[in-house]
Amino acid sequence: MPVDLRRFIRDVPDFPKKGIVFKDITPLLGDRAALREALALLSRHFEGRGISKVVGIESRGYIFAPAIALSLGAGFVPVRKPGKLPYKTASEEYALEYGTDRLEIHVDALQAGEKVLIVDDLLATGGTASAARRLVEKLGGQVVGSGFLVELKFLDGRSRLAGIEVVSLIEY
Amino acid sequence: MPVDLRRFIRDVPDFPKKGIVFKDITPLLGDRAALREALALLSRHFEGRGISKVVGIESRGYIFAPAIALSLGAGFVPVRKPGKLPYKTASEEYALEYGTDRLEIHVDALQAGEKVLIVDDLLATGGTASAARRLVEKLGGQVVGSGFLVELKFLDGRSRLAGIEVVSLIEY
Repeated sequence: MPVDLRRFIRDVPDFPKKGIVFKDITPLLGDRAALREALALLSRHFEGRGISKVVGIESRGYIFAPAIALSLGAGFVPVRKPGKLPYKTASEEYALEYGTDRLEIHVDALQAGEKVLIVDDLLATGGTASAARRLVEKLGGQVVGSGFLVELKFLDGRSRLAGIEVVSLIEY
Repeated sequence: MPVDLRRFIRDVPDFPKKGIVFKDITPLLGDRAALREALALLSRHFEGRGISKVVGIESRGYIFAPAIALSLGAGFVPVRKPGKLPYKTASEEYALEYGTDRLEIHVDALQAGEKVLIVDDLLATGGTASAARRLVEKLGGQVVGSGFLVELKFLDGRSRLAGIEVVSLIEY
């Protein structure tokens, strides 16, 4: 019987600030059956697509991307906040509620033509996933899909990922 | 034939500051065979010990801990920097080169008596792993081992993890 993943998401009111109800995924991560189910569902969806790299966005994307890479027989590529990657990087800016931030990728993280899956815990406005996509494309990679544990539908992040498949396991 | 993991570690001089040679693990992560081998070696070593939770230390510990948890049939527990975990936390301080920092864990991340494996990418002075151990013990968990991809032997982090098994795949 499939695991009801939604049951393992905890609402935490007023985090990170007053008025926000935070979707806490840690009860899901801590449950062996729910963790296994979530990783299996995301992996299975992208099997047989020739994906050779799975990109995880710092830091919660790292929780899912390497295990999915292992399952797909792909390598794992970290996308990080500025100044964290030690080697030469490419960089992309994205909008925050107030101001902007940047994400970086190592310039040799993938070869031109490689098929890439982008993974994160949460699809909200799509700003970070979209920046990660531009980073992959800058290196000549082809983003074939993106996978998320949770999607906040009302923020319509999908519209910023036009042309690539978007899979999420739990929608709000 | 086993993969020579050391071959996938890249020396980056003067990172994060002048005079430091940084051990860059991203070439290993990006190679599907090396990634699989590293995760398999760490997992296999801790099979059959009754481990029910694998703790990963933010953020590079997240790259390894969930895949190892999956392999061991355990849940994954994140240990994070202050203010990042949304629910009630326990906190432990550790020493930096100059000053101190803190790590946090959710107070309900594990039950008293659970057997726990701590995972991170790098064992250096052992400060963060030792703080993670104290966090687990605060909640009544029993740390049975710790696993690292890289160990900097000359910093003798093992001496701060006395009483628990320490496994590393690549030593310098």
